[in-house]
Amino acid sequence: MDFYPASMENLIDKFASLPGVGRKSAQRLAFHMLSLPDGQAELFADAIIQARKNVHCCKVCQNLTEGDICGICDNDNRDHSTICVVTEPKDVLTIEQSHEYHGVYHVLHGALSPISHIGPDDIRIRELLQRIADNDIREIIMATNPDTEGEATAMYISRLLQPFGVKVTRLAYGIPVGSNIEFADSATIIRAIEGRTEM
Amino acid sequence: MDFYPASMENLIDKFASLPGVGRKSAQRLAFHMLSLPDGQAELFADAIIQARKNVHCCKVCQNLTEGDICGICDNDNRDHSTICVVTEPKDVLTIEQSHEYHGVYHVLHGALSPISHIGPDDIRIRELLQRIADNDIREIIMATNPDTEGEATAMYISRLLQPFGVKVTRLAYGIPVGSNIEFADSATIIRAIEGRTEM
Repeated sequence: MDFYPASMENLIDKFASLPGVGRKSAQRLAFHMLSLPDGQAELFADAIIQARKNVHCCKVCQNLTEGDICGICDNDNRDHSTICVVTEPKDVLTIEQSHEYHGVYHVLHGALSPISHIGPDDIRIRELLQRIADNDIREIIMATNPDTEGEATAMYISRLLQPFGVKVTRLAYGIPVGSNIEFADSATIIRAIEGRTEM
Repeated sequence: MDFYPASMENLIDKFASLPGVGRKSAQRLAFHMLSLPDGQAELFADAIIQARKNVHCCKVCQNLTEGDICGICDNDNRDHSTICVVTEPKDVLTIEQSHEYHGVYHVLHGALSPISHIGPDDIRIRELLQRIADNDIREIIMATNPDTEGEATAMYISRLLQPFGVKVTRLAYGIPVGSNIEFADSATIIRAIEGRTEM
């Protein structure tokens, strides 16, 4: 059933492997690639290569950065004694857009999930504990998603933190339960930060 | 509002420039790219480069191919005296999947559209006329989309073909009017090929 040239089929396969992209959309995207002006598709390919090469995790908070330390960790105007723990880098973006939070972050890069075989060693919990041990931290705000995995992750981490005597809070349920932090609007985020409760 | 590293923002911008991909989807795709196993993202980038480098138009029918002549034009079992004129390469795929058509194709790569400033010189009409002048063609089946641009294109070409004395037919309206040939199912395509009428 290969009616397209091999390298075209290959490109369609690649697009179809992306999350949320079906076969018809992949065809459309591949045709779009071929129809771009000279050099544009090459710039697209280069953007992928460059992002893979340059982007890595901040050695302090594990957020994405191109330097050693990300812009938030490197900012002296932020409150470095408050750490907001999030699941993914995009959650940092959502919370930053509310302009209500002035502390720093810790990105776990995942949530505990026995079903998906994601355990404590698969996400950046060890780095968080080390950070709390090495620095004078006043409060940890758990901002994992309000779903089963997120709750379990928050609970697990809050127990690990008990020996440190640090205050651990959880974002208030201003966020609709079962949804995703990524899609919350700024007003909801603000309500959730104001109404945070001690765990 | 740039919370992501520059090369990440650049990759998100690139994905957001694709048809039908919004900002949130572009973020998701960019994160997916970064989360791929080593080498996979590079293969994706290479697929774009290779497709751009290797894929070009068949010098006979203007369909996409990697060689000089496409597999359909190069096939002696096809009826080379019947040419089916389509708008886009993906229309060839849709018609081939019906297994009802055994002639060859001509891909226009567009349809006449005064609003989008697409005139007769912007699509492959000249190549079609040359092909009919140089070969013994019995019938031209106009399979442009059943919308305003497609109808106008079919009408325009059928008038140009009058001096050649070749039979010009149009796909029957088995295809729902206003829709797109790309999305027609094989049964509809078969009905349309059977019921084609002389123009």
